Formats: sequence, C-alpha cells, structure tokens
Amino acid sequence: MISFSDSLALIDGEIRAIDYPRDPAGLYDPVFYLLSMKGKKIRPALTLLACNLYSEDVRAAVYPALAWETFHNFTLMHDDLMDNADLRRGEPSVHCRWNNNTAVLSGDAMLILAYRLIARSPAALMPSLLELFSRTATEICEGQQYDMEFEGRTDVLEEEYIEMVRLKTAVMLGACLMSGAMVGGASGEDCRLLYRFGTDLGIAFQIRDDLLDLYGDPCKIGKRTGGDILCGKKTFLLVGALARADAADRATLLSWLDRRDSGDEKIACFRRIYDGLNVVELAERTCLERYDAALGFFRRVSASEDRKAVLFGLAADLMRREW
Amino acid sequence: MISFSDSLALIDGEIRAIDYPRDPAGLYDPVFYLLSMKGKKIRPALTLLACNLYSEDVRAAVYPALAWETFHNFTLMHDDLMDNADLRRGEPSVHCRWNNNTAVLSGDAMLILAYRLIARSPAALMPSLLELFSRTATEICEGQQYDMEFEGRTDVLEEEYIEMVRLKTAVMLGACLMSGAMVGGASGEDCRLLYRFGTDLGIAFQIRDDLLDLYGDPCKIGKRTGGDILCGKKTFLLVGALARADAADRATLLSWLDRRDSGDEKIACFRRIYDGLNVVELAERTCLERYDAALGFFRRVSASEDRKAVLFGLAADLMRREW
Repeated sequence: MISFSDSLALIDGEIRAIDYPRDPAGLYDPVFYLLSMKGKKIRPALTLLACNLYSEDVRAAVYPALAWETFHNFTLMHDDLMDNADLRRGEPSVHCRWNNNTAVLSGDAMLILAYRLIARSPAALMPSLLELFSRTATEICEGQQYDMEFEGRTDVLEEEYIEMVRLKTAVMLGACLMSGAMVGGASGEDCRLLYRFGTDLGIAFQIRDDLLDLYGDPCKIGKRTGGDILCGKKTFLLVGALARADAADRATLLSWLDRRDSGDEKIACFRRIYDGLNVVELAERTCLERYDAALGFFRRVSASEDRKAVLFGLAADLMRREW
Repeated sequence: MISFSDSLALIDGEIRAIDYPRDPAGLYDPVFYLLSMKGKKIRPALTLLACNLYSEDVRAAVYPALAWETFHNFTLMHDDLMDNADLRRGEPSVHCRWNNNTAVLSGDAMLILAYRLIARSPAALMPSLLELFSRTATEICEGQQYDMEFEGRTDVLEEEYIEMVRLKTAVMLGACLMSGAMVGGASGEDCRLLYRFGTDLGIAFQIRDDLLDLYGDPCKIGKRTGGDILCGKKTFLLVGALARADAADRATLLSWLDRRDSGDEKIACFRRIYDGLNVVELAERTCLERYDAALGFFRRVSASEDRKAVLFGLAADLMRREW
C-alpha cells in the first residue's frame, strides 16, 4: 500500500525520467519548465492511489498518471495565455518568460506528449484509456470556452456555473481516479463510482477555492484576498449574488464589474453585498453538499477500508486546505 | 480502384458526417469553418489512394484520412495565429474572424478531435497508427519552431532549411501515405518506401512553392508575386542567396530584410541578386533531385502499375501546379 507522499515521490521521479526529445530547446524547454515546477501533483497521485485500491503494483498506472499531469500543465500553459495571467506558481508564466507564440506551440507539443504517454498504458486497456482521455480533454476545452464566455455575461445561472466547473476542472479528477482504477482491475461499477467521487469532489473544491479567494487567511493562501473580485472573475459568489440581488445591488455590482482601476473599495463593496445576500452561506452549503455526495460515492466503492483511508484523507485535506 | 476525385468526394462526404459535438458553438464553429473550406485535401486523398494500392476497400482508411485532414487544419489555425496571417484560402483566418483566444482553444479542440479520429482506426492497427500520428505531429511542431527561429537568423544553412521543411511539411505527406498503406495491408518495406516517397515529394513541393511565389504566373497562382520577399520569409531562395552572396550583396539583402515599408523596389533588388547568384537554378535542381528521389522510392513499391498510376499522376500534378 502506498501513501500520498509515496505517490508524489514516484511521480516526481518518473517526470524526471521521461525520455523525450530536447531539441529544439525553444520548443521543449517551456514544457519542462512547467512540468518541473513545484506543484501539488494531485492528479497523478489520484491515478496511482486509485490503482492501489485494487493492485499492489501501481507502476502500470504510471503512464496514465504522467499523461494527466502533462495534460494538466498543457491546459495551464494555454489558459495562462488566454487569461493573460503573468504568474504561475509564483514564477513567470510561459508566455511572459518566453512569448505568446512559444506558449501556443510548446503547449501543442505538450498536448501531443500527453497523448504519447497515454499510448504507453498497458496495451489491453490503452484503447479505453485513450477514449477516456480524449473525452475528458474535449470536456476541459468546453469548460474553458464556457468560462471565457461567462466573462461577457451577467446572467450566468448557478447551474451553468457548476456545469462549467464540472467540465473545466472536475471531470479531470474523476478521470484520473477512473483511469487508475481501470489499470488496477476495478469493476465497471467501481470505476463509475470513483469517477463521480472525483467530479463531485472537484466541484466542491472549486467552490471552496472561490470562497478562499475572498475569505481565506492571506498568510495561508499565500496571496492577498479579493483577487477574483479585482479582476471581475465570475465566481460562484458573484454568480449567486447577481442572481439574488435587488435592482440597486445589481446595478452597483454591474457598475463596478468593468472597472479594473479599483482596489479595496471594490472588494469592500462586493463583500457588503455578498454578506447581505447570504451568498457565503449558499456557497458553503453547496460545497458541503457536493463533498458529501462525493464521499457517498466513494463509500460504495468495493475496496478494503484501509486502502480507501488514504483517499478519504486526501479528500479531507483538499477541503481543509489553507482555510 | 478509385481516382483522385473519387477520394476527394469520399473525404468531403465523411467530413460532413463527423458526429461531433456542436456546443458550445464558440468552440466548435471555428473548427468546422476551417474543415469545410474549399481546400485541396491532398493529405487525406494520399491516405485513401495508398490504401487503394493494396485493398479495394478504402473505407477502413477513412478515419486515419480524416485525422490527417483535421490535424492539418489544426496546424493552419495555430500557424496563422503565430504567423499573424489574416487570410486562409481567401477567407479571414480564425483569429481574425473570431479572436486570438478562439484560435488557441478551438485549435486545441481540433487537435483532440484529430486524435479521436485516429482512435477510430481499425483496432488491430490503431496503436501503430497512433504512434505514427503522434511522432509526426511532434515533428511538425518541431518544424514550425525551427521556421519561427529562422526568422531571426541570417545564417541558416540550406540543409537546415531542408530539414525544417521536412519536419514542418514533408513528414506529414509521408505519414499520410504510410498510414493508408498500413490499413491496406502493405508490407513494412512498402510502408517505408511510401513514407520516403511522401517526404521527398513534400520537400520538392515546398521548394517549388518558394520558386512559384517569386517566378510564378500571377494569374495562375492567384496572387501577386514576391510576397515571400515582402514579408522577409526565409525561403530556399533567400537561404541560398545569403549563403552564396559576397559581402556587398549580403549587406544589401540584410539591409532590406527588416524593412516592411518597401514594395516593388525590394522585390526587384532581391531578384537581381538571386539571378546573379544562380539561386533559381539551384532551387530548380534541388527540387528536381528530390522529385526524382521520391519517384525512385515509389517505383520500388510492390503494387500493380495501374493502381500506382493514380499516385504517379497526383505527384506530377503537384509538381506542375500553377507554374
């Protein structure tokens, strides 16, 4: 049985060992710049830990795990470019350190690398894993598209927001777990339960992330609070507030929304409206409901309780983090 | 046995029939905008015609053929963005008709679609076709990277230029042919010969393209001549001229190279230097050498001569086009 930190150590070693071309350096350096950053690497860990629910030999799940981590970092490279985000894990993002064209092309090479890794999965499972991988990758693109479209809309429904989060963020956690379980030899039913565990956990995690951005402890989250408000991001809080606000509050929110020149005053105004509309309680309740649903799916998984304890612990950590 | 136009009709019908999601439209409309443009569709035709060298049933090669066509259009979407090219086949390119983010994200979705199509190849061959596809896709990214790096260099060697063209353009023609032959049941030796036929033909075709841009008949090539010179593109002609020029000619070429404000005078100057250095003869000779080499590989392919005649004819057409 392996622990979360065992899985991280395994992944780090394997990432360093990928036998991939290094020339032209202008194409591949940005790929390994992102891959070698200190990241949480939760996704590949989920794959290995899900495999370990059923099999002592998690090495067979290493290539799917690396494929997910590589794909995740590909999305970061292209998303940072599209979102004009200058920093990634405290370092310059690829389009800032290099340039926009590099972020496009090295991202493409990285997506292809992810496919080359999934192709190295155990042969009998490779076609199914490839299908899961492509379906998930497609959904993640759809989620990013909805996210970008929401920027220009003020009538986003809560269920639309949650569907966007499901596509952009949550399906990947479900697919990471499912692919590991497939390699470990899980039943179809367990694979489906783990997929639902991952997606509901992912939605809960994103809503908690929206809450943390405004109400987290700046020391623990490593940045000042209110960043999402300052950049006008459509979070669960803002979507909920716009849906519940009376005409006056709605007009106030909308008038602030397009202003980028504002600081603490904007944050204070949003917080006041959020507090008056109880959207924090709404978000916490929705987050907990999703977390409970996730745990409900996971409890039904037919693996030994001591092995499941590692993933129960990881899920609890994800919900507790930096709050 | 099918003709070139049979293969085009089959491909056009299959592209229209792809059962692919259409929502969100902002993500998928640009994909089908490019795919449904009137294009030459030589790549999927090569796959079908190579399959038809060995098998009467070319339908088994349709998914690899569609994968190549989709991948090719993905590279056009991202290359037009990186090269800041406003037009594609006379229509606005995707980043102009929509915006840069759309070109990035719809391109990503298109690359994933190409993988979903290759995954639908005949099951027994799918892993080998997937490997060929990913290796080729990687090389095409490398070729685009070298092409972009060459923009900032004045010391590009002829062999470097040819290697860039091989990666960016030619390997795909080889892989299109090889994948069709694999599906048709060709021997390993024939697959390799067809791959070399395609890559040498691709290199010859690109050098001819460089020649056409300056010396073609404007009525036949559908644009005024000298476009490559005006935008400072490193063509075979320019690379050859810079390598052969004396100090004075080299200084003249370099002084013009960064100027975008110049028109006929720049073209006339380049032509005068090209003519003095015999780079046109050099390009024609190199082009013909590659074409002859391509035909040499194809002659050794063990298929019936009447079936080979279709591909001999297509190769000749490619070399003759609009000259």
